[in-house]
Amino acid sequence: METILVENEVQQEVKLLDAINDDHEGVIVELNKPINSDDFASMLRASIAQWRKQGKRGVWIKVPIELVNLVEAAVKERFWYHHAEPKHLMLIYWIPECTHTLPANASHRVGVCAFVMNEKREVLVVQEKTGILRGTGVWKFPTGVVEEGEHICDAVVREVKEETDIDTKFIEVLAFRQSHKAFFEKSDLSFICLLQPLSFNIQKQESEIDAAQWMSLDEYVAQPFVQTSELLKYIFDLCLAKIDKTYSGFSPVLTTSNISNENGYLYLNSRDLRSQ
Amino acid sequence: METILVENEVQQEVKLLDAINDDHEGVIVELNKPINSDDFASMLRASIAQWRKQGKRGVWIKVPIELVNLVEAAVKERFWYHHAEPKHLMLIYWIPECTHTLPANASHRVGVCAFVMNEKREVLVVQEKTGILRGTGVWKFPTGVVEEGEHICDAVVREVKEETDIDTKFIEVLAFRQSHKAFFEKSDLSFICLLQPLSFNIQKQESEIDAAQWMSLDEYVAQPFVQTSELLKYIFDLCLAKIDKTYSGFSPVLTTSNISNENGYLYLNSRDLRSQ
Repeated sequence: METILVENEVQQEVKLLDAINDDHEGVIVELNKPINSDDFASMLRASIAQWRKQGKRGVWIKVPIELVNLVEAAVKERFWYHHAEPKHLMLIYWIPECTHTLPANASHRVGVCAFVMNEKREVLVVQEKTGILRGTGVWKFPTGVVEEGEHICDAVVREVKEETDIDTKFIEVLAFRQSHKAFFEKSDLSFICLLQPLSFNIQKQESEIDAAQWMSLDEYVAQPFVQTSELLKYIFDLCLAKIDKTYSGFSPVLTTSNISNENGYLYLNSRDLRSQ
Repeated sequence: METILVENEVQQEVKLLDAINDDHEGVIVELNKPINSDDFASMLRASIAQWRKQGKRGVWIKVPIELVNLVEAAVKERFWYHHAEPKHLMLIYWIPECTHTLPANASHRVGVCAFVMNEKREVLVVQEKTGILRGTGVWKFPTGVVEEGEHICDAVVREVKEETDIDTKFIEVLAFRQSHKAFFEKSDLSFICLLQPLSFNIQKQESEIDAAQWMSLDEYVAQPFVQTSELLKYIFDLCLAKIDKTYSGFSPVLTTSNISNENGYLYLNSRDLRSQ
């Protein structure tokens, strides 16, 4: 651990925080050892003075929840919240005089909705144990939330497997929907996906699913809950357009970005691109 | 403010926290007045006891950054972090014995990328002042981040206006890409959008943009940075397929959900749906 001399009334040695450089002229501090909050405040002040001299810009401090006693000290030094996960809080500070260019926090939850049909034109539907449709008797397509670091095309296959034990192959995204204030200030993006079933024996998940079955398309769409929903009728229409006509959604292509140097799926209308 | 009697050595009156009910048998507390952290801890314990009796499940506490002194007290009562925004932290607690069913935190940032072409087959491109391409001389399509509560189709029009002063009309999403670990543990979803220009005189934004121009498609694609990027070449191919052939992306339709009772845009292949 580095130390520097701080000029006080009596000159004293103050330890500096361990930090690593990020790619944007900033530094990242990951706290992991218990420390008295007054000592932390001194170290933080001395470290910021040092980083300022070095021309550093953004300062990130990741505070595990066990070290919550340090949060107040950082906020007193004019740090603010960037984001939080269950077990840590990320605090940030901007050293230069100019407006900060720090990246925004995540703003959207991403969900998936699975349209899975067998050869008898029956669609895979479930009744959920929790949520707004609990106890209503409404049969709905399996849905779920994309987990951290998970591809959309993997998430929807996983959700169907978890809820019904049906194995499926991802075909394409038929449509997606963005909605706001789904919870607190955050927004939702939900991807309606076509999957091809690879197995047919349903085994429902005990914890979340009340019932699961293959249901005829006619019976599904005749449900009052579907009939009164502009959105669900739209989705049903495009599922029908897909199975009976020539509707083309977006299918995934793995591509590498030379900016971020990572792999990701680009979802596009492959049929139209190929047909040129 | 409600009060209850707590049996201590001396029976004393403890105030309860003001809370409102949510739609999932939980309660939401929004702290807004300064309070001593010991008093807060007593009120919190008494309130939880009361909520437990009432059969409440999730407890949400929104703590503004000015009241950071209360965070440690809540964590000591076994609250954990749900999410944070620059000026507040949301803490949660689950009263029942079973596993919690609280909604996940937002996991994705959402970006937009604009393909805008004029009648001379020139595309609108910019050079950015910050970020990874700063100072490289690379010309790129305007990009940006979707703001809280903003529709994708509005965000991309706003970004083009901000960066170049060009007015545009949103046409459709040509493709989208999901990538992971874009920053910390979060993921990115980026939507490549076709916009129709409604004005043509460029006025670049001073703060973020170094230069902006209409550039011939040939010149754009000939850039080494584009030529060496699998992703950018793919995107360019589908832009060409759109302007010269019959590529169909997803266009937005405003729909209402009867589950969440809110409006949102459903993005779908309208051409294929209409053509049935």
